Amino acid sequence: MTTNPNPPFSFEVIAADPKTGARAGIFHTPHGDIETPVYMPVGTQATVKGLLPRDLKEAGAQIILSNTYHLYMRPGHEIVQKAGGLHKFMHWDRPILTDSGGFQVFSLAQLNKITDEGVWFHSHIDGSKHFFTPEKVMEIENALGADIIMQFDECSEYGADRDYARRALDRTVRWLERCAAAHGRPDQALFPIVQGNLYEDLRLESVAAARPFARYGIGIGGLSVGEPKPRMYEILDAMRPALPEDVPRYLMGVGSPDCLVEGVMRGIDMFDCVLATRIARNGTALTSKGKIVVRNAEYKEDFSPLDEECGCYCCRHYTKAYLRHLVNAGEILAATLLSLHNVTFLTGLMRGMREAILRGTLGEFREEFYARYAGAAEGKM
Amino acid sequence: MTTNPNPPFSFEVIAADPKTGARAGIFHTPHGDIETPVYMPVGTQATVKGLLPRDLKEAGAQIILSNTYHLYMRPGHEIVQKAGGLHKFMHWDRPILTDSGGFQVFSLAQLNKITDEGVWFHSHIDGSKHFFTPEKVMEIENALGADIIMQFDECSEYGADRDYARRALDRTVRWLERCAAAHGRPDQALFPIVQGNLYEDLRLESVAAARPFARYGIGIGGLSVGEPKPRMYEILDAMRPALPEDVPRYLMGVGSPDCLVEGVMRGIDMFDCVLATRIARNGTALTSKGKIVVRNAEYKEDFSPLDEECGCYCCRHYTKAYLRHLVNAGEILAATLLSLHNVTFLTGLMRGMREAILRGTLGEFREEFYARYAGAAEGKM
Repeated sequence: MTTNPNPPFSFEVIAADPKTGARAGIFHTPHGDIETPVYMPVGTQATVKGLLPRDLKEAGAQIILSNTYHLYMRPGHEIVQKAGGLHKFMHWDRPILTDSGGFQVFSLAQLNKITDEGVWFHSHIDGSKHFFTPEKVMEIENALGADIIMQFDECSEYGADRDYARRALDRTVRWLERCAAAHGRPDQALFPIVQGNLYEDLRLESVAAARPFARYGIGIGGLSVGEPKPRMYEILDAMRPALPEDVPRYLMGVGSPDCLVEGVMRGIDMFDCVLATRIARNGTALTSKGKIVVRNAEYKEDFSPLDEECGCYCCRHYTKAYLRHLVNAGEILAATLLSLHNVTFLTGLMRGMREAILRGTLGEFREEFYARYAGAAEGKM
Repeated sequence: MTTNPNPPFSFEVIAADPKTGARAGIFHTPHGDIETPVYMPVGTQATVKGLLPRDLKEAGAQIILSNTYHLYMRPGHEIVQKAGGLHKFMHWDRPILTDSGGFQVFSLAQLNKITDEGVWFHSHIDGSKHFFTPEKVMEIENALGADIIMQFDECSEYGADRDYARRALDRTVRWLERCAAAHGRPDQALFPIVQGNLYEDLRLESVAAARPFARYGIGIGGLSVGEPKPRMYEILDAMRPALPEDVPRYLMGVGSPDCLVEGVMRGIDMFDCVLATRIARNGTALTSKGKIVVRNAEYKEDFSPLDEECGCYCCRHYTKAYLRHLVNAGEILAATLLSLHNVTFLTGLMRGMREAILRGTLGEFREEFYARYAGAAEGKM
């Protein structure tokens, strides 16, 4: 099948579903191989909240995402660099992807001024003023040392009019060129990002502009930012024929179970999302039969595991009654155990899809997923 | 040496320091052997905060303590019993000790009324009114199913006058008789508790009253509640000749490194304290050279481990700079890693003392401890 050898990176598509375009592949990186499609847990501040790296590996994580904006703010990229890079700093020896901070400066920080040169913004921590340019972001990402780094982009918000979506897209393309010129480490793969909001023609234009820079992979940004899921799927359908075949396609910030299934069906290879660990900290579990809000009184004397089909440490050793107690008592072990379980659930879902692609049974997999997961949860997705 | 066979419990003193009375022993329990002297991490709400049981074992924990008052309040002892007991509920297959709630109802809850019959108090969680009697506490501790259970006692506060200390002691003795009569599980060892505040004659009287009930072990309560450490040591010195030789002696709620050393020197075999895990959550580490406040700016670019001599997961894989980042960023992994380290430090300290007792070098051990630990920390104990 398709192979794209660009040492130290290369991507092999080892099977593809002829009906849907879903692919099973292997992405070779300096820190090891990633079997795709893959879900990446999010380690915003150089830690996937509440999980030791060994727990994360046990949960099936092949690669994690960390946030450039947050690490620049705290502890500072120079400190991570002096520590020997992000892998060593956080003791994670598998691949890492860093985003570019683009999404954060446009959503989390207090925006001050956007120009072609870059973005002035105020820190969400202490209000201090900072300036991100494509060159600055490459300097930060190079210092952090992830295997995969994302370009600095401008993400227009959900509901943006066509004019702003167009301007943000054009700027993203100009910034891509500057990122590519400034990026200096051959052991890091730079991914361009497709923008264009919900305008199909802009999306296609953005794909075309990104393709020359998609040597190792391509990111799709600006989705799952508030739009109805069917709109996101339409945009993915529209882009699919135009996306490069020989590199991994990464749908940024998407990771609810149904979106993972629908994304894979549309040829997406990589996903990340804070959902699994965030809802874990709120006491919610993802299971093969739908979501479980562990705090609910119905689990007070439920001495069964979260998910009978799950083999994770949490499901092997703990009952819903115990987890409910931990959540109610405000114990941090609740976050650890539920995160461990939720990450295991999503990595298992991806592995299940990968195997279905290899066996040519992805359609059945999807049907069963909806019959059991969505059905049992009565739409609680 | 001394052996006290009371299956399923027995205690062997395998070595004793002739100069100090410090002992090295093995306490056999239904959930395994405990090498003494031993430090017990505290798992108040059926979890040692932030640590998976496997992490706790790796940190050297042989036995943990859990709190009867807290588990009665939440999730309720009946639920723990229905779950198959505390060991199964929290997935801890080594020994557990439960306190009696005495200390908590007199310190944490809002006291309402103390009579010979029992204690009325209000929950610290929701203000609801509850009544603890010796019989009720035995019912709760029997339901929880720990290996070692403590009698219900009245702990007079630091500064209490002789009259109140006397009344609390007398009531503790009467309650002991009722606990012994109500306790119904031969697989649980009931420990009486010595009270008497800082009055040496009352302490000796209390020891004498407790001894007939000290079949498996004896607890010493009401110390480390605010008095200067030398006062505590004087009381321990005064009690030592009167304490039974053939059972473990447990100094309740004591666990700073220096108190552990001084306690062992005075013939104490068991200790528990929240200190190690509580200060971990505040970002403080116990090390062979003294306490480290990880948040301090001096560790910003310190890429060495917390303790060069420690082999725990935290010290093998992480630097002070990383831990400081986690603490500053409010990441719960900071609590996990520092707790793992601090528990490892205290279990290592106890193991070191045990080996010194076996080798007859406890005096040198103590000298070296003070020279390095206290000296390096400039009195920061």
